[in-house]
Amino acid sequence: MHPANHTKDQRVCARRDQIIAASRLCFRKHGFHGAGMAEIARLSQLSVGQIYRYFVNKDAIIEEIVRRIVCKKIQIMTGDAHNLKQMASNLAHRVIGMQNVDYSQVDCPELSLEQNEIDHALMLEVTAEATRNPVVEKILRDADAKLFSEAKSMMRPYYPQMPEEQFTARLEVLAVLCEGTAFRRLTHKHADAETLRAIYIQLFNTLFTDYSPPHTAEN
Amino acid sequence: MHPANHTKDQRVCARRDQIIAASRLCFRKHGFHGAGMAEIARLSQLSVGQIYRYFVNKDAIIEEIVRRIVCKKIQIMTGDAHNLKQMASNLAHRVIGMQNVDYSQVDCPELSLEQNEIDHALMLEVTAEATRNPVVEKILRDADAKLFSEAKSMMRPYYPQMPEEQFTARLEVLAVLCEGTAFRRLTHKHADAETLRAIYIQLFNTLFTDYSPPHTAEN
Repeated sequence: MHPANHTKDQRVCARRDQIIAASRLCFRKHGFHGAGMAEIARLSQLSVGQIYRYFVNKDAIIEEIVRRIVCKKIQIMTGDAHNLKQMASNLAHRVIGMQNVDYSQVDCPELSLEQNEIDHALMLEVTAEATRNPVVEKILRDADAKLFSEAKSMMRPYYPQMPEEQFTARLEVLAVLCEGTAFRRLTHKHADAETLRAIYIQLFNTLFTDYSPPHTAEN
Repeated sequence: MHPANHTKDQRVCARRDQIIAASRLCFRKHGFHGAGMAEIARLSQLSVGQIYRYFVNKDAIIEEIVRRIVCKKIQIMTGDAHNLKQMASNLAHRVIGMQNVDYSQVDCPELSLEQNEIDHALMLEVTAEATRNPVVEKILRDADAKLFSEAKSMMRPYYPQMPEEQFTARLEVLAVLCEGTAFRRLTHKHADAETLRAIYIQLFNTLFTDYSPPHTAEN
């Protein structure tokens, strides 16, 4: 690549990062619907015209934010998606993401605990917006499909005996548990973490470890 | 009660209903944050001053909307909260609420399927708003506490042997499954309903029916 192009690419990336960071702040503060391009521009220290050079509209910004959140989630679960004991503990403690990350050891600022909280709030925004905006609904569906398929290819090798439809359905229930837990994070926790953790271990045994096909006779 | 007062009470109720109906529309369309009192007034065919006579601010309107949704949810689950087979089927089909209601038989228009969809979208809005507004966070927590305690007193008599903390934790997991399912309603359904239903029946057995205390020796 020509050095001039390299610099240009870097500049485009930096500008996009700048706009995404400003948009995240703006969406957090006013919601997607309440946030305007003018304020996003002001926070990015760019003109509205410049913003449109990098993103065709607000939906395109939402798409990029969701894409980055999904990438982070995939990065977090890599290599540890099959660790059901860890996941039971995470659900019991209402830890978002697929595993316990020692955030002090992560040098990428995007992976900080605080950014994680903001990601969670933004995903709530996206889901609320998806109920009224078909473009955002599609963004949400595509993001979930990507995350689901990543989780599936990571966990599938550990359960080679399980029929495909059974494995997929059990993974769907796992997704329901993860998202239900995230959704309930602001509500009062009715049970202590240790009791919950033991129950989740039981449930995961039922879902994955203890699985046996309903008909044992093959032919 | 004096007839004049009775009429006055009725008028207050009618006005409040009118404002709530307009606010639901408005919040659905623009989100809580994007919706203004001016548009709520316009849709209610009242002046902004009149609105403030019935609700001190937008948060008070949100509170009343959530209160009504919780009342409806309690009404729907009354008498059938212990029907776990029905609930397994509802979760598998992503039916919102605690049981299958034959909506054609319900004469209250507030209980219609369409209103139920709107309720779901509004609860997403409330949860997103709760991440940035402590007043709304409290409304959400109080609503959940009320719903949880109602579900508990309905289901508790069916599991008299289960220790309190175990029962509460298992009910919390049930709430996670219900809300996770509602939250995932817009995503692609990765598994067919019949496979999911059978899995939920298994999970409910693990959670409730097959429960045995960890130490069988009492003393």
